[in-house]
Amino acid sequence: MIKGDTVNSSFDDWCQLAKKERRGQTVEASRHETLEGIEIKPLYTEEDVVSDRIKDEMPGMEPFTRGPRATMYTGRPWTIRQYAGFSTAEESNAFYRKALAGGQQGISVAFDLPTHRGYDSDHARVEGDVGKAGVAIDSVEDMKILFDGIPLDKISVSMTMNGAVIPVLASFVVAAEEQGVAPEQLTGTIQNDILKEFMVRNTYVYPPEPSMRIVADIIEFTSQSMPRFNSISISGYHMQEAGASLVQELAYTLADGREYVRAVLARGMDVDAFAGRLSFFFAIGMNIFMEAAKLRAARRLWSEMMEEFKPKNPRSKMLRTHCQTSGVSLQAQDPYNNIVRTAFEALAAVLGGTQSLHTNAFDEAIALPTDFSARIARNTQLILQEETGVTKTVDPLAGSYYVESLTDELVAKAKELIDEIEALGGMTKAVVSGLPKLRIEETAARRQAMIDRGDEVIVGVNKFQPAEREDIDIRRIENEKVREGQIKRIRQVRREREDSTCKAKLKEIEKRAQHGGNLLEAAIEAARARATVGEISLAMENVFGRHTAHTTTLTGVYGAAYQNDKAFSDIQNDIENFAQEFGRRPRMLVAKIGQDGHDRGAKVIATAFADMGFDVDIGPLFQTPVETARAALDNDVHVVGISSQTAAHTTLVPSLIEELKKADAKEILVICGGVIPPQDHDFLAKAGVSAVFGPGTHIPDAASQVLKLIRQQQQSL
Amino acid sequence: MIKGDTVNSSFDDWCQLAKKERRGQTVEASRHETLEGIEIKPLYTEEDVVSDRIKDEMPGMEPFTRGPRATMYTGRPWTIRQYAGFSTAEESNAFYRKALAGGQQGISVAFDLPTHRGYDSDHARVEGDVGKAGVAIDSVEDMKILFDGIPLDKISVSMTMNGAVIPVLASFVVAAEEQGVAPEQLTGTIQNDILKEFMVRNTYVYPPEPSMRIVADIIEFTSQSMPRFNSISISGYHMQEAGASLVQELAYTLADGREYVRAVLARGMDVDAFAGRLSFFFAIGMNIFMEAAKLRAARRLWSEMMEEFKPKNPRSKMLRTHCQTSGVSLQAQDPYNNIVRTAFEALAAVLGGTQSLHTNAFDEAIALPTDFSARIARNTQLILQEETGVTKTVDPLAGSYYVESLTDELVAKAKELIDEIEALGGMTKAVVSGLPKLRIEETAARRQAMIDRGDEVIVGVNKFQPAEREDIDIRRIENEKVREGQIKRIRQVRREREDSTCKAKLKEIEKRAQHGGNLLEAAIEAARARATVGEISLAMENVFGRHTAHTTTLTGVYGAAYQNDKAFSDIQNDIENFAQEFGRRPRMLVAKIGQDGHDRGAKVIATAFADMGFDVDIGPLFQTPVETARAALDNDVHVVGISSQTAAHTTLVPSLIEELKKADAKEILVICGGVIPPQDHDFLAKAGVSAVFGPGTHIPDAASQVLKLIRQQQQSL
Repeated sequence: MIKGDTVNSSFDDWCQLAKKERRGQTVEASRHETLEGIEIKPLYTEEDVVSDRIKDEMPGMEPFTRGPRATMYTGRPWTIRQYAGFSTAEESNAFYRKALAGGQQGISVAFDLPTHRGYDSDHARVEGDVGKAGVAIDSVEDMKILFDGIPLDKISVSMTMNGAVIPVLASFVVAAEEQGVAPEQLTGTIQNDILKEFMVRNTYVYPPEPSMRIVADIIEFTSQSMPRFNSISISGYHMQEAGASLVQELAYTLADGREYVRAVLARGMDVDAFAGRLSFFFAIGMNIFMEAAKLRAARRLWSEMMEEFKPKNPRSKMLRTHCQTSGVSLQAQDPYNNIVRTAFEALAAVLGGTQSLHTNAFDEAIALPTDFSARIARNTQLILQEETGVTKTVDPLAGSYYVESLTDELVAKAKELIDEIEALGGMTKAVVSGLPKLRIEETAARRQAMIDRGDEVIVGVNKFQPAEREDIDIRRIENEKVREGQIKRIRQVRREREDSTCKAKLKEIEKRAQHGGNLLEAAIEAARARATVGEISLAMENVFGRHTAHTTTLTGVYGAAYQNDKAFSDIQNDIENFAQEFGRRPRMLVAKIGQDGHDRGAKVIATAFADMGFDVDIGPLFQTPVETARAALDNDVHVVGISSQTAAHTTLVPSLIEELKKADAKEILVICGGVIPPQDHDFLAKAGVSAVFGPGTHIPDAASQVLKLIRQQQQSL
Repeated sequence: MIKGDTVNSSFDDWCQLAKKERRGQTVEASRHETLEGIEIKPLYTEEDVVSDRIKDEMPGMEPFTRGPRATMYTGRPWTIRQYAGFSTAEESNAFYRKALAGGQQGISVAFDLPTHRGYDSDHARVEGDVGKAGVAIDSVEDMKILFDGIPLDKISVSMTMNGAVIPVLASFVVAAEEQGVAPEQLTGTIQNDILKEFMVRNTYVYPPEPSMRIVADIIEFTSQSMPRFNSISISGYHMQEAGASLVQELAYTLADGREYVRAVLARGMDVDAFAGRLSFFFAIGMNIFMEAAKLRAARRLWSEMMEEFKPKNPRSKMLRTHCQTSGVSLQAQDPYNNIVRTAFEALAAVLGGTQSLHTNAFDEAIALPTDFSARIARNTQLILQEETGVTKTVDPLAGSYYVESLTDELVAKAKELIDEIEALGGMTKAVVSGLPKLRIEETAARRQAMIDRGDEVIVGVNKFQPAEREDIDIRRIENEKVREGQIKRIRQVRREREDSTCKAKLKEIEKRAQHGGNLLEAAIEAARARATVGEISLAMENVFGRHTAHTTTLTGVYGAAYQNDKAFSDIQNDIENFAQEFGRRPRMLVAKIGQDGHDRGAKVIATAFADMGFDVDIGPLFQTPVETARAALDNDVHVVGISSQTAAHTTLVPSLIEELKKADAKEILVICGGVIPPQDHDFLAKAGVSAVFGPGTHIPDAASQVLKLIRQQQQSL
């Protein structure tokens, strides 16, 4: 222990003392490596801050490490902007109004998947998805209801829209116009970030090239006609959700940003005419200091990267960002724990200097937020703003040896990845090559293995589980009813509009898609003539086509973490035995049905099951139940695993089972995984689902259980 | 906004830029003064770190700013130690076992108020309090049940006990002995901090002087026979709970510590023989960075203060502390918000480098924690340890310009207050003078006025109130039943013990109280002979007497905040009118009944009501219903305001109303305030209570309401 003679203040003495406390283990041995490959040292001192420059850095000045504005929250706190939307425009409008009355400061619209993918609610492919994971918007009429009583010249609106970005933004502009608010007055953000859709989120419509053109069209139009509106939100959020490390999220997001800037510059625009309206969007996970450092690193990096384009206005180098607490960090088990998680993440975002923030509701690993859970999520930010003192000074972590060192390291690591993308010829080409997606999936599989092995503890999930499960009240969407209502309103719109004008405007879109001309401008005219979201989208699809992704599976990454693990090799042997007994390996089709493109879960399961010895097929995204049933039959699988993130399972999974029965293939088992509330388990079991696995499932256990089900089924045949 | 030519990295330029962003308001004008009188600047830079020394400071080395140990949480995280106890030893034991199984790492016992005050459960004065705010412990037999199946050589036990510290610690030692664990093996902490009891918490038994002797007796005994046990926990916690600013908490706690050291040295003991086993206990409120800095400042200050005593072992200068998140920051309104508050506070404690931590359950502003709320509170710490990365490096805030500057400022401000105490002749004398208590009450009244005026926002309380109130499930204690059981067991103990031995041992305690000799040593022998807690306590009381506090009321502080406030002067006028109409001012007796000594609420109410124009009497602490009724009659008051913090109101308030009726004084109104669950409101109304005011009540509104009730009552007579 401490001896009088060892007390002095040098680092070497500290090393000695630490070694004694650790019974001989050295400082080097006690470093901790993160998923990012960054080594966290047990002690940071002034020596660890590489750049001396930070000492003179001031917020509001290049390279903006300490914040994009000089006064930051001391002048005005970040904007509390909760992402929300569900079922009809009427219901979402009521929810927004309640939230604004309760202290929320801006709106962030979640659209349903049919809208994202450019389908009207009456489209045959979207049966199970209408109004489920967001609000259904088919036309200007829906948009007007959505913002009824909400003054669009005062309240800023963020819209998460990428695939059908042209018709949705057009409908928004027209709805505002008819509220008496001109485009120049509109504030807010359109996500409009298509590159990350191809990488991780999959709510694209058209192939990469025309998609990039649309992005540029929007930036061009907004920079001219909507100067207060952020033309894009370059998003790392979905990368972290898909399993990316913070370095990957940081690097790929900034590389995406650079690609957009180049695309717009290629049109001959001046960088200062649009760069100040580029905005960013990051996820904030549980690693508090690393997340705060990430935002600081992002600003420094972006400022440096933008120098390439020689802007004259420093604002063009300024990274401003929205943040959202991590959805993937939320757990369905012991869900009130999520209030705690979200609180820490919110704090990290604020310490990093975010401009606006969404905090997740604690029940979002189970269902859409209720009024109650939404209030607690909002209150988390209000408490942070009003009660903790964090708004009283700018960048309170500045100077911290640890945080400054992390900031430096994140910058350095991200640069390496950014250079790799450059070497591939920029992000559009990198996305086509599939490399960033693969890297992210690899990280996701590696982390899942760490959790399943217990190397990473998640409270209430793989350790400290509560003795009893408590069910919580959840919000349920009656999507069939929503769909009926939407179809009725679409019909009315079509009845009441002047058809020839509408057709002419749609024709003009098609013409511009083919021969050039700003698509958003044309779409606004079409929306004014009451063309629907689906119709405007289709006009472009007629020219651009619809993108189909090529699905690949990763192998070996998950299994590598289990080398020499007894339990794991037991499962492998079990599967081997099955193969010998039944003449072939257990075979599973991992499928997504409906318009839900979140495929992290599906990919991780596919990788892990394959590494254990299953034959795994991955179905393409966006399948109908009929298509999935056919794929199951064609591949002669034992089991179909449906990964559901957006609550469409209540409609689509029973349809799938019906289809299998019709094809006389009821021996094919169906299991479900993903975000499935306990309240649905009985319903699914009655519909014929053999097992349901929630978030936080231990994959080797799940595999054993699935194998057992297959074996039973085979023996009973 | 930002112009190209203003971008460079000097502080002056930043000031210019900030002024522009603020439309002309200067940096000086935008400073924020805290309750501590510390000015928070909008920007901190390297210039703000006064002492250059910090750069060479290493954790585990003097002056321990960066932590008492070199490896801190990278070696072993803080101990999760939840303070709990209620009803019987059996029930509390079951609760502890569940908590340990769920991830808790040490035990912290909450005793009921009769035990605190040295009364057995069968004493006539403690009718409403048995088993209510903690567990009832009357003898070794209870103590054995309390720790049944919990190995006391492995699990450390902290006991919050100050008044009846001798009999309780003695019973613990004997219970361990009978479990086969010798005193030398025991780890844990006894609070044993009597000075702050006189200042704020009021669970004393004897007057200050003999109380100080008891503290020294315990330190003497434990340093010889229980070397792994912390002999004292010098507590600032209750100061902050009583309304102290962080500087007051810091200064008075360290001044208490110095007083204890001097008391023990006065016995001729060597400082190194005991100073290493002094421990501390701080509250952690919502001001995240200030709280973290407070712990850093506390360590630096203590290390410096201990130099006075010239210890040879550096460990004697090392401040180690337990922390608890702030109870007073919890709100009865929208109680799930408290999960968020507690999470931020827990983080602050950890960033400050606490050695162990209690996190409050979210329902503690309403009742005792349930199993559910206790689990979420524990999980808050587990999530912090396992999921946020904060344990991976020591003192992550070190070097932060803001935090280092706050640390320096807290040290400087606390020194001023410590010097003031020295000038009064040390803390025992200061406590007798009443100065620290008065300063704390003044701060409490000032803060209450800030909240009532809305200058300080508390989410869900004075802003952002939820539309509907949601009642939560609470834990209820059937104290009459608990009392019956305790009385039965006491009788059994008395029946089965060898009476003459027991009497002789008690006599020896009395003798030592009179003539000297270690009281704890004698009490252990008495406890072994099955003398009860109350009997051992009484043996000393026979010699020392029982302390009665002198109650003073502060005036003017609350009202000062409302100068020129229209609504406030309206109330004052209303009261003036009442006085003219009825010939005298409305008169209120503010009373505490039962053994509950938490008087912050009562004091604040008395001050505020007096400033509005009420005639206010404050009753002495620890009254029976009969005594309070008599005081109400003697003072001829209109209303009795009962402040209840410990759930004894369900027994004692109906008794009070009964007494008033018996005295034919049923025109005297009774109102209640404090921690009263909504579930009790109906019960109290039926018993005849006119109004109930929960935590977070707006005091001027409450005064108006009380005045109205009095007026109605007077008019109906």
